[in-house]
Amino acid sequence: MSTEGQVITCKAAVAWEPNKPLVIEDVQVAPPQAGEVRIKILFTALCHTDAYTWSGKDPEGLFPCILGHEAAGIVESVGEGVTEVQPGDHVIPCYQAECRECKFCNRFSINGKPIYHFMGTSTFSQYTVVHDVSVAKIDPQAPLDKVCLLGCGVPTGLGAVWNTAKVEPGSIVAVFGLGTVGLAVAEGAKAAGASRVIGIDIDPKKFDRAKNFGVTEFVNPKDHDKPIQQVLVDLTDGGVDYSFECIGNVSVMRAALECCHKGWGTSVIVGVAASGQEISTRPFQLVTGRVWKGTAFGGFKSRSQVPWLVDKYMKKEIKVDEYVTHNMTLGEINEAFRYMHGGDCLRCVLKMQD
Amino acid sequence: MSTEGQVITCKAAVAWEPNKPLVIEDVQVAPPQAGEVRIKILFTALCHTDAYTWSGKDPEGLFPCILGHEAAGIVESVGEGVTEVQPGDHVIPCYQAECRECKFCNRFSINGKPIYHFMGTSTFSQYTVVHDVSVAKIDPQAPLDKVCLLGCGVPTGLGAVWNTAKVEPGSIVAVFGLGTVGLAVAEGAKAAGASRVIGIDIDPKKFDRAKNFGVTEFVNPKDHDKPIQQVLVDLTDGGVDYSFECIGNVSVMRAALECCHKGWGTSVIVGVAASGQEISTRPFQLVTGRVWKGTAFGGFKSRSQVPWLVDKYMKKEIKVDEYVTHNMTLGEINEAFRYMHGGDCLRCVLKMQD
Ligand SMILES: [Zn+2]
Ligand SMILES: [Zn+2]
Ligand SMILES: [Zn+2]
Ligand SMILES: [Zn+2]
Repeated sequence: MSTEGQVITCKAAVAWEPNKPLVIEDVQVAPPQAGEVRIKILFTALCHTDAYTWSGKDPEGLFPCILGHEAAGIVESVGEGVTEVQPGDHVIPCYQAECRECKFCNRFSINGKPIYHFMGTSTFSQYTVVHDVSVAKIDPQAPLDKVCLLGCGVPTGLGAVWNTAKVEPGSIVAVFGLGTVGLAVAEGAKAAGASRVIGIDIDPKKFDRAKNFGVTEFVNPKDHDKPIQQVLVDLTDGGVDYSFECIGNVSVMRAALECCHKGWGTSVIVGVAASGQEISTRPFQLVTGRVWKGTAFGGFKSRSQVPWLVDKYMKKEIKVDEYVTHNMTLGEINEAFRYMHGGDCLRCVLKMQD
Repeated sequence: MSTEGQVITCKAAVAWEPNKPLVIEDVQVAPPQAGEVRIKILFTALCHTDAYTWSGKDPEGLFPCILGHEAAGIVESVGEGVTEVQPGDHVIPCYQAECRECKFCNRFSINGKPIYHFMGTSTFSQYTVVHDVSVAKIDPQAPLDKVCLLGCGVPTGLGAVWNTAKVEPGSIVAVFGLGTVGLAVAEGAKAAGASRVIGIDIDPKKFDRAKNFGVTEFVNPKDHDKPIQQVLVDLTDGGVDYSFECIGNVSVMRAALECCHKGWGTSVIVGVAASGQEISTRPFQLVTGRVWKGTAFGGFKSRSQVPWLVDKYMKKEIKVDEYVTHNMTLGEINEAFRYMHGGDCLRCVLKMQD
């Protein structure tokens, strides 16, 4: 029986208040309006940005809301004028970090009380509604429990290397933070032909795994008395060609810039810092030829390039499976977040349907 | 009678102590050693970097010293192994901002007491000795009282646009500070085909002159209650394509970055900030696609590209004469520095020989 045009009642993990456990609720999901698409979410992964907003530290976070932005599913129905996708298409919803409008859309409600969207995606729900420009239609053969990761972390890392920094063969690369995004940076750097990929992390347990993603050598700042930027400059005869900050720590962002070689070194901010925090350095660092950049979603155009990334995965040209360290269900989402904060976890994928 | 191989005694302006008037002294200039060139300085201009070091605020400034780094002259003699120039060649000495080594060379002395070099040039002397790699041999037809300016300020501004930012036709450009370097940025931007060149300065008297250098519109921050970055964003429907900070003020450097259009805007730090000062911004500014760069000597390779700039001047493709607002003599150098700090002065050129 078609649910097209109907309100769907389904399960979703609702964040009623900052920092309080998510509650699995029956929510009402409105039918898609003109230019919108309703998606049955099959799998969603957890990302640190979800945890950050949930924590209440994001002053733009609105509660109650449904978090989640790294997911894959199947189009259930489409609103008027939507031509790019149709029911049954396999899709990855693509977030918009700045979609203010969507936070106020009344797509979700519980007994008539509106629930806010998050990043235009809200994938911690069995059904969600997104703008048609935010839907990437992908190869229906692709395993959704894996390619859901191509909605955020992995493309962010790969794209930081390929689109934002444009790393050349033979480059020396430093990656700060060896979580999912940092490992994707390492993988991207290796694919780009980097001669050295130096991984920096304070958790030595992460080092062994990182080798499989392209990291060629490891530096633990805790093993050194000198500032980490000096350690790297000494290790590379003057500094690295490219550095990537994949943590979201403004002090590390500075170190990442300052470990670059003068004259040409480029540092890319990939991690998301807490609201209100600032980066700083001496202008001399830039005047002597370093470049400071940043990236969002790795500079990929979501709708057109996420399907291309899925194809690369299907051709085994990029890793995805290797980032999935845990598999759980929607009902276990609070436990999943606890795993996420442990050092072992890269990505925990939730099965959303029973 | 040749002075080759001899110590030359000549006049120089010596900075005995920070912030005390320069004193015209008889100094002894040693003959050039292997790889060095002794130059008879005919004309030198004054630059803000000279004044900054003289002020004592530069912790790396050493006293007593002979300042000066924007000059032109004629090769008097060369040391062993120097093949690129010979006595009689017209040259522009090219500074090296970081030439530590040279600060300790004993090229200058007064009655046996060594006097420190400055930036490897020390052009406030009738004769000076520089490394051969720091000498640009130029067209002997070029008027030295004009092209001495091609030793620092004018190339810095032009190169910031052409080499560092690579401004494209149709771009919207913002220039903070309408002194010599800022006007050279405007001139370079106009030559690169910028559609709008917005000049920002707190001295409205500078605006009329700036039009002749390519500035198309003016903004005085004092005329606005809003932060200047917001004024510029409003004025340009989202921000400028390129901005250039030509003052050396770290707050202005931040404004220059933040007035850039998200997604692609690039800001170039051209001005030299006081030692110890830091630039800062929210990382979000970079993550949303802005790029922060800097430039030294506009990214030009001195020895090979200064002669090219002289040729462009001789073909009337770049301005130089228009930056010379005052002409004085070595003996008037203290007065010349007072002029330099007035708003009317762009460059004061000193005649160095009687
Ligand atoms: Zn994410
Ligand atoms: Zn919306
Ligand atoms: Zn200068
Ligand atoms: Zn030297």
